[in-house]
Amino acid sequence: MSFWKRLFSNSDAFSTDHNKNLEGELLTYYTASRGSGQSPGRPVNERRIVLSTDPDIDLYDLEELCDRVGWARRPLRKVRKAIRYSFLVVSMWEVRGKRRRLIGFARATSDRAFNATIWDVAIDPDFQNQGLGKALMKYAIEKLRAEDISNITLFADPQVVNFYRRLGFMVDPEGIKGMFWYPD
Amino acid sequence: MSFWKRLFSNSDAFSTDHNKNLEGELLTYYTASRGSGQSPGRPVNERRIVLSTDPDIDLYDLEELCDRVGWARRPLRKVRKAIRYSFLVVSMWEVRGKRRRLIGFARATSDRAFNATIWDVAIDPDFQNQGLGKALMKYAIEKLRAEDISNITLFADPQVVNFYRRLGFMVDPEGIKGMFWYPD
Repeated sequence: MSFWKRLFSNSDAFSTDHNKNLEGELLTYYTASRGSGQSPGRPVNERRIVLSTDPDIDLYDLEELCDRVGWARRPLRKVRKAIRYSFLVVSMWEVRGKRRRLIGFARATSDRAFNATIWDVAIDPDFQNQGLGKALMKYAIEKLRAEDISNITLFADPQVVNFYRRLGFMVDPEGIKGMFWYPD
Repeated sequence: MSFWKRLFSNSDAFSTDHNKNLEGELLTYYTASRGSGQSPGRPVNERRIVLSTDPDIDLYDLEELCDRVGWARRPLRKVRKAIRYSFLVVSMWEVRGKRRRLIGFARATSDRAFNATIWDVAIDPDFQNQGLGKALMKYAIEKLRAEDISNITLFADPQVVNFYRRLGFMVDPEGIKGMFWYPD
């Protein structure tokens, strides 16, 4: 199946005619310049933001996004494996006509029953502070909830703790502490 | 394959002749009453503590262990699924002659590349404070490290934070916070 077919069969676009899940405010904001007075159908230069759960992401697109976010490079072989064994892979695309650009990403490991842990949340710096990170996360939470997973966890860098708080994530509920073990 | 065959093909026993990985101190401690002056071979009533990565665990054995630890019961259907989709399942058994008893458990979700998260660490209260939880966790860490997973995480209740600290786990390194999202 071509990328586009896959993208749109597994995706949710932020446009009024695909609105099912996301907030009206965001939908309005991100629904692109809709044809005014044009003939029916999608305008050629319409800008849309599309969310997808298709895990088949071009690793170079992803590496470019991670570079832009400032993350240390990781071996593509391992990134491929991590995506393959993630339960959920969410990507966000800016789509203009036939062009698409990867602007957001997150993935989650899970036991598919009780717990999921979200990793590698990235939004292209050019697209930050527009509510897209929030939309990406809400989409991920919604997908995990649809699988009846009730305990969604993550490890947040200090500068994004408040971002996740606003999404309903709690720090150390009942004194539970996130802990890390690294090799010596 | 019978339970016993599987158990011993996927297991590490704490006895001197199977010593590969674990600390001499523990091995000595947990190696059972070894036959003194008896004929060669394993004494019939020898007590051994055996660690296994076989995920095929009797769910009623596991439920009994969780009951003894005081955890709320969970639907066996979901427990089965969670075990199936865990990357690593570690169990600890007390073995006396032909009898075996599940005395410890832990499992980990993982992307098999970068991150693993350990869940459901349980040691039978009758067997606590003997170093077995430490042995179980070291075994789990060793198995994850053998898969080249470098970031091992968990969420620790307040009363076990120091236990995990002694194993080398750090709370909030560089200000990274464990966060939880629960349904309303």
